[in-house]
Amino acid sequence: MPKFVYFFGGGKAEGHREMKDALGGKGAGLAEMTNAGLPVPPGFTISTKACAVFEENKGSLTPAIEDEIAEALARLETLMGKSLGHAADPLLVSVRSGSKFSMPGMMDTILNLGLNDRSVVGLKEKTGNGRFAKDSYRRFIQMYSNVVLNIDKNLFEHELQTVKKTARVKADVDLSEQNLDAVILRYQAVVLKQTGKPFPQDPKDQLTGARDAVFRSWGNPRAVTYRRLNDIPHDLGTAVNVQCMVFGNKGDSSATGVGFTRNPSTGAREFYGEFLQNAQGEDVVAGIRTPHPITDLQQLMPSAYKQLREITTRLERHYKDIQDFEFTIEENKLFMLQTRNGKRTGLAAVAIAVDLVDEGILTKTEALMKVEPQSLDQLLHPIFEPKERAKAKVAAKGLPASPGAATGAVVFTADEAVAWSAKGKRVLLVRMETAPDDIHGMHVAQGILTATGGMTSHAAVVGRQMGKPSVVGCSALSIDAKKKTMTVGDRIIREGDVISIDGSTGDVMLQSLSTSPSEILQVVNGTLKAEKSPIYQKFAKLLSWTDDVKRLGIRANADIPQDAKTAFAFGAQGIGLCRTEHMFFAEERLPHVVAMILAAAKGEKGMEVLRGLGKRVAEANSAQKKSLKAELAAARKAYDPAIRQYQGALKKLLPMQRSDFAGLFREMKGYPVTIRTLDPPLHEFLPKREDLMVQIAAKKGSKAELARAHKMLHAIEGLHEFNPMLGHRGCRLGITYPEITRMQARAIFEAAVLVAKKGAKVRPEIMIPLVGHVEELRRQKAIVLEEAARVLGEGVSGVEYLIGTMIEVPRAAVTADEIAREADFFSFGTNDLTQMGFGLSRDDAGKFLGPYVEMGILEKDPFVSIDVSGIGQLVEIAVKKGRATKPELKIGICGEHGGDPASIRFFHNVGLNYVSASPFRIPIARLAAAQSHLEKPNAD
Amino acid sequence: MPKFVYFFGGGKAEGHREMKDALGGKGAGLAEMTNAGLPVPPGFTISTKACAVFEENKGSLTPAIEDEIAEALARLETLMGKSLGHAADPLLVSVRSGSKFSMPGMMDTILNLGLNDRSVVGLKEKTGNGRFAKDSYRRFIQMYSNVVLNIDKNLFEHELQTVKKTARVKADVDLSEQNLDAVILRYQAVVLKQTGKPFPQDPKDQLTGARDAVFRSWGNPRAVTYRRLNDIPHDLGTAVNVQCMVFGNKGDSSATGVGFTRNPSTGAREFYGEFLQNAQGEDVVAGIRTPHPITDLQQLMPSAYKQLREITTRLERHYKDIQDFEFTIEENKLFMLQTRNGKRTGLAAVAIAVDLVDEGILTKTEALMKVEPQSLDQLLHPIFEPKERAKAKVAAKGLPASPGAATGAVVFTADEAVAWSAKGKRVLLVRMETAPDDIHGMHVAQGILTATGGMTSHAAVVGRQMGKPSVVGCSALSIDAKKKTMTVGDRIIREGDVISIDGSTGDVMLQSLSTSPSEILQVVNGTLKAEKSPIYQKFAKLLSWTDDVKRLGIRANADIPQDAKTAFAFGAQGIGLCRTEHMFFAEERLPHVVAMILAAAKGEKGMEVLRGLGKRVAEANSAQKKSLKAELAAARKAYDPAIRQYQGALKKLLPMQRSDFAGLFREMKGYPVTIRTLDPPLHEFLPKREDLMVQIAAKKGSKAELARAHKMLHAIEGLHEFNPMLGHRGCRLGITYPEITRMQARAIFEAAVLVAKKGAKVRPEIMIPLVGHVEELRRQKAIVLEEAARVLGEGVSGVEYLIGTMIEVPRAAVTADEIAREADFFSFGTNDLTQMGFGLSRDDAGKFLGPYVEMGILEKDPFVSIDVSGIGQLVEIAVKKGRATKPELKIGICGEHGGDPASIRFFHNVGLNYVSASPFRIPIARLAAAQSHLEKPNAD
Repeated sequence: MPKFVYFFGGGKAEGHREMKDALGGKGAGLAEMTNAGLPVPPGFTISTKACAVFEENKGSLTPAIEDEIAEALARLETLMGKSLGHAADPLLVSVRSGSKFSMPGMMDTILNLGLNDRSVVGLKEKTGNGRFAKDSYRRFIQMYSNVVLNIDKNLFEHELQTVKKTARVKADVDLSEQNLDAVILRYQAVVLKQTGKPFPQDPKDQLTGARDAVFRSWGNPRAVTYRRLNDIPHDLGTAVNVQCMVFGNKGDSSATGVGFTRNPSTGAREFYGEFLQNAQGEDVVAGIRTPHPITDLQQLMPSAYKQLREITTRLERHYKDIQDFEFTIEENKLFMLQTRNGKRTGLAAVAIAVDLVDEGILTKTEALMKVEPQSLDQLLHPIFEPKERAKAKVAAKGLPASPGAATGAVVFTADEAVAWSAKGKRVLLVRMETAPDDIHGMHVAQGILTATGGMTSHAAVVGRQMGKPSVVGCSALSIDAKKKTMTVGDRIIREGDVISIDGSTGDVMLQSLSTSPSEILQVVNGTLKAEKSPIYQKFAKLLSWTDDVKRLGIRANADIPQDAKTAFAFGAQGIGLCRTEHMFFAEERLPHVVAMILAAAKGEKGMEVLRGLGKRVAEANSAQKKSLKAELAAARKAYDPAIRQYQGALKKLLPMQRSDFAGLFREMKGYPVTIRTLDPPLHEFLPKREDLMVQIAAKKGSKAELARAHKMLHAIEGLHEFNPMLGHRGCRLGITYPEITRMQARAIFEAAVLVAKKGAKVRPEIMIPLVGHVEELRRQKAIVLEEAARVLGEGVSGVEYLIGTMIEVPRAAVTADEIAREADFFSFGTNDLTQMGFGLSRDDAGKFLGPYVEMGILEKDPFVSIDVSGIGQLVEIAVKKGRATKPELKIGICGEHGGDPASIRFFHNVGLNYVSASPFRIPIARLAAAQSHLEKPNAD
Repeated sequence: MPKFVYFFGGGKAEGHREMKDALGGKGAGLAEMTNAGLPVPPGFTISTKACAVFEENKGSLTPAIEDEIAEALARLETLMGKSLGHAADPLLVSVRSGSKFSMPGMMDTILNLGLNDRSVVGLKEKTGNGRFAKDSYRRFIQMYSNVVLNIDKNLFEHELQTVKKTARVKADVDLSEQNLDAVILRYQAVVLKQTGKPFPQDPKDQLTGARDAVFRSWGNPRAVTYRRLNDIPHDLGTAVNVQCMVFGNKGDSSATGVGFTRNPSTGAREFYGEFLQNAQGEDVVAGIRTPHPITDLQQLMPSAYKQLREITTRLERHYKDIQDFEFTIEENKLFMLQTRNGKRTGLAAVAIAVDLVDEGILTKTEALMKVEPQSLDQLLHPIFEPKERAKAKVAAKGLPASPGAATGAVVFTADEAVAWSAKGKRVLLVRMETAPDDIHGMHVAQGILTATGGMTSHAAVVGRQMGKPSVVGCSALSIDAKKKTMTVGDRIIREGDVISIDGSTGDVMLQSLSTSPSEILQVVNGTLKAEKSPIYQKFAKLLSWTDDVKRLGIRANADIPQDAKTAFAFGAQGIGLCRTEHMFFAEERLPHVVAMILAAAKGEKGMEVLRGLGKRVAEANSAQKKSLKAELAAARKAYDPAIRQYQGALKKLLPMQRSDFAGLFREMKGYPVTIRTLDPPLHEFLPKREDLMVQIAAKKGSKAELARAHKMLHAIEGLHEFNPMLGHRGCRLGITYPEITRMQARAIFEAAVLVAKKGAKVRPEIMIPLVGHVEELRRQKAIVLEEAARVLGEGVSGVEYLIGTMIEVPRAAVTADEIAREADFFSFGTNDLTQMGFGLSRDDAGKFLGPYVEMGILEKDPFVSIDVSGIGQLVEIAVKKGRATKPELKIGICGEHGGDPASIRFFHNVGLNYVSASPFRIPIARLAAAQSHLEKPNAD
């Protein structure tokens, strides 16, 4: 027969610390402390399996379980020599929920269960403390009625205030026993009125009611949401802990408190916590009385304090982690009510893990498992001053796209952002959505706020890459860019008004808030010396340990030398993705890019025609030559202007790209640098079609301007696409416009030679995007090889290059065996693979992806964390097929998932060689990679 | 040692008919005829393997092969008792190319090889016919110089004309021997001038030159293109046939001709062909002299004619197919020069195959293999009057999207098409591209012509489905819809001008042409009785044989009862795809659809809010009830108008959909009818965003109209998507707007009950589109099941329904095992699967897909014929995984590929249960399915 109830008490427990699945964290901790001989009030834990039964039976348990509970209660009564709610000397208990993971929405603690109109008198007589007994009873009624009977708290608060007013009393503790009797009567009247029934007097009914409330709270929407967001299985269930009461409210020799063995904010090695004399349970955290620092206890109750220090130190060593504990001192006697690993900030997590290694408590690999990779993010981004932040009103919520705190004056266009910040103003860029031509504004802004878009929208991706706090998809905003206003509810915010955003939570606050900068970042940026920052040293130490463990290489997605520098400082060992087009948006380059685009089609065609005619002339006999030459002259006349414009623009762009690439090579100091050839659809570089249509319809501008608009519109119409994501982009551009690939390849090799000549090693890896068919790769590769031969000749010392492909089209994944024949490496573009594999445009998915996650159709946003069961299969197929052709094929991933710990675990398990993440996520990726290997070691 | 040369002659040949791979069609035919004892001039065939060697060695053969050729020549010389080009009695030969498949661009025949300045005198003396000898020589010089030496034909034509003028002679045959001597001298001068060398005099050199020219012609660009288009492997190679000359130009007892054993246009059983007396080789087809009908030969040369009839009849029985033969009569003696299966029209193919069965020559299954499925198309569509068509100038070329001939007055909008045709005019609808709201115009038009779009663009798909001749993507057109003109080159076509398009070739002609209607279609449409149309009877007979053979079921893509009726008449056994949205575009429905869309989001939200509040009110206690009721009242006020509009629109649409579905059920007479729930993004039903923006910018319209435009634009902005193909469509609509799915499901079941109550069987198969995750299907299915329970209750006699899903998202393919748990059937949407799997938007791919096929990156347009090696793998994965979960899972395909023979072969091989094709492709699909099984039988 399965066991559902676990007893603890009398120095022995039926459970132990490893039984968190069955007993929850709290139950397992109580069992463990009991077994360790610590002073823990006895009790029993109803296991999580009973919760499953409760859910299955729609709100009831089986008779067998009820019997087991009754037995445990009887055993407890025997041990304590009291019986639950007995009129003369009542046994009182607390009832608490306790799952493997703590989560919001779960039932609050119920204390003093067992009290009723008769046992309260017994308690008074037994303790000789009437005020204590009545106070305990009114607390019980209040808690039970709220939590179990679902009656509004305020109704009780109102009665309490009435009595306090009548009694002319300010603090709860100043209420007399008589006052409390009045409160109790009033409370009971409230219960009768709200439920139509008197407050339950049978202690067994009280216990059953409390227990069922715990089980019911497992299905509380907040808890359900939390579990979904944190990957906690819904069938895990909660346990119920029933424990003998001890009383911190028995006068000045009693107290109750909470504490941490170290500072959970900073990680500092200090005894940290608070307590209240003559108080019970939630008083400490309720904020009605101001609690004292825990260290004050040393003077007030020296022996209990000493015992507490000893016990908690032992617990920390036992659990090898910072402990978060609760205790009660009843008439100078210490009781431990709970201990668990303490929640901590990222900062503290790093400091504690490193300290525990220094103290010999943890090994390095154990320490690596103690820090949540995602929490490292907190060390990198500015944060709000905590107290100000707590008081600030949240006016709207968006998606927390790029963490960190930002405060600034609102501007509505990138140009305004630049203009305002040139005047020394800190600005927040607010847009419906951002686009590549907003980048200059994003660079200067403190943070970015958009009304649309998801976690991988342009604003989100660029925000994370720049390390800019960003909140996106904040649908409560109504932006009128023309009027330069935005509306949030009934508040109108104008250009220049200061607001704040919290990129870690998605909160938008319509006020200014102070921020604290991140020390780590100051060191990385060189504005603070590493030796002056202990936290930086610990951070760097912890990350250095990852290198001994992890099997995944970590590279960065970096387009410009500054990003590469940051990434390198964070420990990136190479660039996994440089998007060459990023460089095209710079102000001085865009005109050449536009010129190139407008002449590309005719230019390429012309070059082909002239080459063909030239060849025919060369091969022709004298009679044919004459007519061919006339044809050639006509073709020259037709095509020469376009060819000149096209080649001219390419010639201008070549040295610019060369110098960018050289910068990247220099920053990466010999590590590989993966450069992707031009990828986005060309219309992204041109004005918006609708804008031109509207301008022309409204006849806005001079005649010349309108003529230009007409001409541009005509060109854009030719490039317009219904589904640009599935259109003329990626290698399809390089194949229809081979001269662009040629120019880029030449720029890469020329840059490599430039840097190598100074004695550095250079390892460019040229990556062809959006390959769906091996033939595409073969042809683009041929062009790159031609340029390599032209620039490098027989080879240049120090330059070693590879030519590979992105695997981002589903067809490429299933034909990876063929593609591997032409590829030196694969790099998964999981953004596009997710888009195409799922049939989801990430720019548009907001409308249904949000509801999908809310409704539980999808567990998580597949653009944030890779969809292992679907898109993951395409990755696995491609790895298997690619390596079937080339067993040593180097395979990486450069989509946004490269910085997501859950995704990194998958990439490790599937046997990739490296992940590439945005610079600010390199530390996270390093730690996640190490943890992945510790959890599931890969063959070397 | 491999054999490279195969001799034939003296009643025996080394090759035979099965050796087409090695000997080519011609060589195998000559060998076969020789072995059959027919009068074939002896010779030898250099095999296609030598062609491979020639290509590999870049233009030369090995000494071993050269020796083998020399031996064969020697054997021929011995057999004939003459030696090649001998001065006194020269052996003369013809040299011809011959591959397994004939193709354009291959080398023309060279006759009379072996003649030179000396042997021509020997020929004259031996034959006593100086004119004949000289004529043979000048022909040889002309052909050889053009074909082998690559000299322009016109240069020779010019010299010939000069001599004829001088001699005052009109026809070539009237030139005297002296005249011909002059021609020969002039020809030789041309050769000397153009090549710098005299015309080759050594017969062995001549032979080598001709042979190499044959091999070189294998690489001719036209041949390469043809092979690519027709799936002929490039490494097949051509053979070279060297054969003794016989002469049809030895005077009036000699002749040469070509013929067919039956009429290749109509299939009629008649001896068909032409001949010329005293002529050689190409004279018959050159069009200089008018040839005589072959039947005239009976009187002129009765014994030769009788022998020819006997031989060709034997050949037809031997090859079991219509024969296309060449013959020469040399001084009353018949020689057979070639025989091969004759090319024929689709009409003839059907007639001949059925006749041959009736004549006992073919079995039914053999007959099924004799007809190219694609060619059946020709029987269904109107054709141009052939002579007019031949003379018409082709002004532009587009993609041949839907076959058939159409002539009509140009109109530029669907509304005009309707207006003009209401006045009895035949119109051709010309659009940049068509959209769903053009359907009414497409219905009334004779044909459709678009400037953009590919083979699966809207115009193409709908055109094929309606059986309308369509030419799409005709980029030479410049359309100005506002001015109602289009420009083609320098011709301006205005509204009302009559033009013609040939949907079978993509040709556009700027003139009126007469068309002949298709008899088959007249029968299907009921305007002609089947018994009055022999060709219909043969067509129906042939197709009826497919049912005994094929394993694939054939269904139709049909949205409206009329389409279903046509499909049924063509033999469809069910509907594989009914697009419910097609019905939404009808004029009287669109307003309700628009109303539904505009209120959907708020309506659904409101219904959810009210349901939630209602539930809370029901569960609340008295105190809570009060405040909840106020909340409910406020919510009602906020949401009721939207809910009313939403539900009102749905209520209007329900009976319309019900009656459509009932129509389909009736037409399908108990066969399954697959109905897809709403699929396209909703903005497709609304005005175009840009149009409204322009209207507003230009302030076009009254104040009220502008206000409406503003409001509509606002709504559309909310629905605007960057990549609608990957956006809010398919089941994502049904999940966010469940009431739409509910309404459609109810309409389906109510229609089923309606039809079943009249005693008919009804088998609706409800299909959920764009499922990527099993959870999507599960939730949509739950709604459908609810409606089924509501409408059908415990079941309705005669109604059996299934609920299944489309597999069109790559993720669905790789998770098909999970999806199969919830699905009664799968239907592959290979259009979308190709779009997403390949990352190709079919609306946009024109820009690079064309060049891709031209460049040889892709063999074929993957939207026309399924990409077996890539997208096909996704299909295979899904079939395997789906059947792993449910071994008996019914699987079909309803993409455009369902009507493509090559794709059907793949679907048969991969084990699908059925394919669904547009009505006009049902016959093709039936035949292709039968052939697939005959080629590669599937387990039953």
